[in-house]
Amino acid sequence: MSLRTRVDLIVHSATQLLTLEGGPQRGTDFGRLGLIADGAVAISDGMILAAGPSKDVRGRYVAAHELDASGKVVLPGFVDAHTHLVWAGDRAAEFEQRLAGATYMEILAAGGGILSTLRETRAASEDALLHSTRARLRRMAEHGTTTAEAKTGYGLDLETELRMLRVIRRLQEEGPIKIIPTFLGAHAVPPEFVGDPGEYTTFLVNEALPAVRDWWVLNAGTDPLPFTDVFCEEGAFAPEQARRILQRSSELGFPLKIHAEEFSSFGAARLAVEMGAVSADHLNRIQAADIAALGRSSTVAVLLPATPFGLADPTYAPAQALIEAGAIVALGSDLNPGTAWCENLQFVMALACRAMRLTPAQAVAAATINAAAAVGCSDHVGSLEPGKDADFVLLEVEDYRHIAYRFGGNLAAAVYRQGKRISPG
Amino acid sequence: MSLRTRVDLIVHSATQLLTLEGGPQRGTDFGRLGLIADGAVAISDGMILAAGPSKDVRGRYVAAHELDASGKVVLPGFVDAHTHLVWAGDRAAEFEQRLAGATYMEILAAGGGILSTLRETRAASEDALLHSTRARLRRMAEHGTTTAEAKTGYGLDLETELRMLRVIRRLQEEGPIKIIPTFLGAHAVPPEFVGDPGEYTTFLVNEALPAVRDWWVLNAGTDPLPFTDVFCEEGAFAPEQARRILQRSSELGFPLKIHAEEFSSFGAARLAVEMGAVSADHLNRIQAADIAALGRSSTVAVLLPATPFGLADPTYAPAQALIEAGAIVALGSDLNPGTAWCENLQFVMALACRAMRLTPAQAVAAATINAAAAVGCSDHVGSLEPGKDADFVLLEVEDYRHIAYRFGGNLAAAVYRQGKRISPG
Repeated sequence: MSLRTRVDLIVHSATQLLTLEGGPQRGTDFGRLGLIADGAVAISDGMILAAGPSKDVRGRYVAAHELDASGKVVLPGFVDAHTHLVWAGDRAAEFEQRLAGATYMEILAAGGGILSTLRETRAASEDALLHSTRARLRRMAEHGTTTAEAKTGYGLDLETELRMLRVIRRLQEEGPIKIIPTFLGAHAVPPEFVGDPGEYTTFLVNEALPAVRDWWVLNAGTDPLPFTDVFCEEGAFAPEQARRILQRSSELGFPLKIHAEEFSSFGAARLAVEMGAVSADHLNRIQAADIAALGRSSTVAVLLPATPFGLADPTYAPAQALIEAGAIVALGSDLNPGTAWCENLQFVMALACRAMRLTPAQAVAAATINAAAAVGCSDHVGSLEPGKDADFVLLEVEDYRHIAYRFGGNLAAAVYRQGKRISPG
Repeated sequence: MSLRTRVDLIVHSATQLLTLEGGPQRGTDFGRLGLIADGAVAISDGMILAAGPSKDVRGRYVAAHELDASGKVVLPGFVDAHTHLVWAGDRAAEFEQRLAGATYMEILAAGGGILSTLRETRAASEDALLHSTRARLRRMAEHGTTTAEAKTGYGLDLETELRMLRVIRRLQEEGPIKIIPTFLGAHAVPPEFVGDPGEYTTFLVNEALPAVRDWWVLNAGTDPLPFTDVFCEEGAFAPEQARRILQRSSELGFPLKIHAEEFSSFGAARLAVEMGAVSADHLNRIQAADIAALGRSSTVAVLLPATPFGLADPTYAPAQALIEAGAIVALGSDLNPGTAWCENLQFVMALACRAMRLTPAQAVAAATINAAAAVGCSDHVGSLEPGKDADFVLLEVEDYRHIAYRFGGNLAAAVYRQGKRISPG
């Protein structure tokens, strides 16, 4: 006669179970893993019921299926806080130009860069976009990502932007990864408005943003509205234009993000704080006053080291100063066809430790619970706690530090989303 | 009635076939891919009979099995010119110490680094070493490597060094990757000789090298002797000790390699040229005169960018100066438990383009035909030419530049060694 509760699945005997419990982390708290030796997780209906020592969990629960994680690390599925997931074509030729000395902003000014992907994306059918994006999601899942933010921004006309949103919406429903959509109509100034970012801003504010809101409500009902985001940068949108876009977005109910201080130091991070944005992303060239402002705020600092790596640009975000200032620091891949075609968040963590001196534990927190906060989902994903989605990764190693210590490979032995194995498929 | 020759396998319709024909590359020749659009390869008995346009190859040959490579790049299997493949244990804790500021040479001086792996390797059984090494070979093969050099050097006593050689020998026979052995008794000064590298050098010259030669002849018959190699570095072996070791090695018939100018500028590359070494490896801090000497020689410059990346050391080898001087430049992973646990040569190529400004085409040549030259095998592997081993990779892309443009993932759809698929297994 057992008094144990029957559940669907127990994952047990993990050499290291990292729960990441206790919410988003900052300051001296940053890097707290909730490490349990010989740990277990009990799961029903895709949700976590308990996480703790194997002995305790198996004393309270009995499962139809058991998964022996001995010799392995079990940790939350990775959350990729910043991706440009949907696009057509590639920019391999432009990569060669950059190796030969052309800068990212020079290529953009010459009609390449984002504008080259814009032409290919506008010309692509919804199904073609779906197909190429699905392949990227599969590779992300293989490397342990179970939640990913996904931006529009390669259409920059209403028709193509809505096509990108439809692709994102179909992939939200299809799975296997949880997707958080972002409308990035303000990614660049499109050819129709060349030289007149103010007029394009007016178009976004008066036409595109209300249309996107209505489209979303008609198609997704009460599902949370997408984020809106602005590329606030020399050659893209000035702070005053960014403010107009974010202000209008806020009035319409969109939560906010901003591309801040990637190449310029525009004070966009401070604008993010003022506007109550959920995150400010990139921050490679953020100034001291803006670091302090971010440190006092609840706006998450999303760092994207794969981008300077991809560009061979030695200027990485000042992660140590941001951590010392108390900012909530998260990681993302910035997956995109121009500067960072990288679907492997394990590599992003390994890079963050080397290029920005995160500890391996901080890198893990930045790519799980803090990244969940950056996409507004820390109540649902990013840690292994009762009531959260049962999203987790089994690593084929006994010490989580191998994620950062080793690089270029894939240590994920198996990846689960809502209690179901999504990789290997 | 067909006049076509019957073969075992034809790989056809490759969007890009890269033959890398014509031998090791240097100077303005470096980066010559032998690119054929809609290319094919005819294979019998694990050997290449022909490589060329699909129409020509299929006009001359008919095969029992055909492999359709449409939409894919086909190129030679990658050759990893420098690995420390065989070891026990890991150094994840030391990685954390380095992030906190300890240098590689400080850790070595404190009994960590190579000496920590030495203790674990001496304590490991032959089967335990075989097991952990086999897992690394499997991951290398998954990423497209079909030939790898493999060094001893974590025993530094005769018993353990010969155990490492037995492991390498067993894996040579077992496959799936072609392995080129190197005896690196001069990797560090072992605890028994601490503070007396001269005395340890005498031991190597008088006892270890002759014993290794005899062991090899008894166990491997007429198979080529291993390379010998010396870590010529402050804290390891001085140039005069390196010269004694290489001189004696040469007398015994060993081909030569040298670890040169990784942290010090000892002129070890010039010593390599003087001694007729097949390669000089690392070269991060090589001086101008030594670059010139290497450029005029047939000693291959093996560059290992994963190591400075792994160490977060911004000093990469001066690849452009070496190329301009006319050196034969090759790439390797330097796979090892201290500074570069990286089994993915695709990542090494992507890194080489960014950190050392190789073009994608140069990176491919450096990891195939030139790496084959660095391990003395350019007559057998490293290009797709008649008479060579049928070692090749199918990439799931239509443009070879994606190897360098993208990073952190694995573009290999299938990997073949001697005409047999070795991955996916």
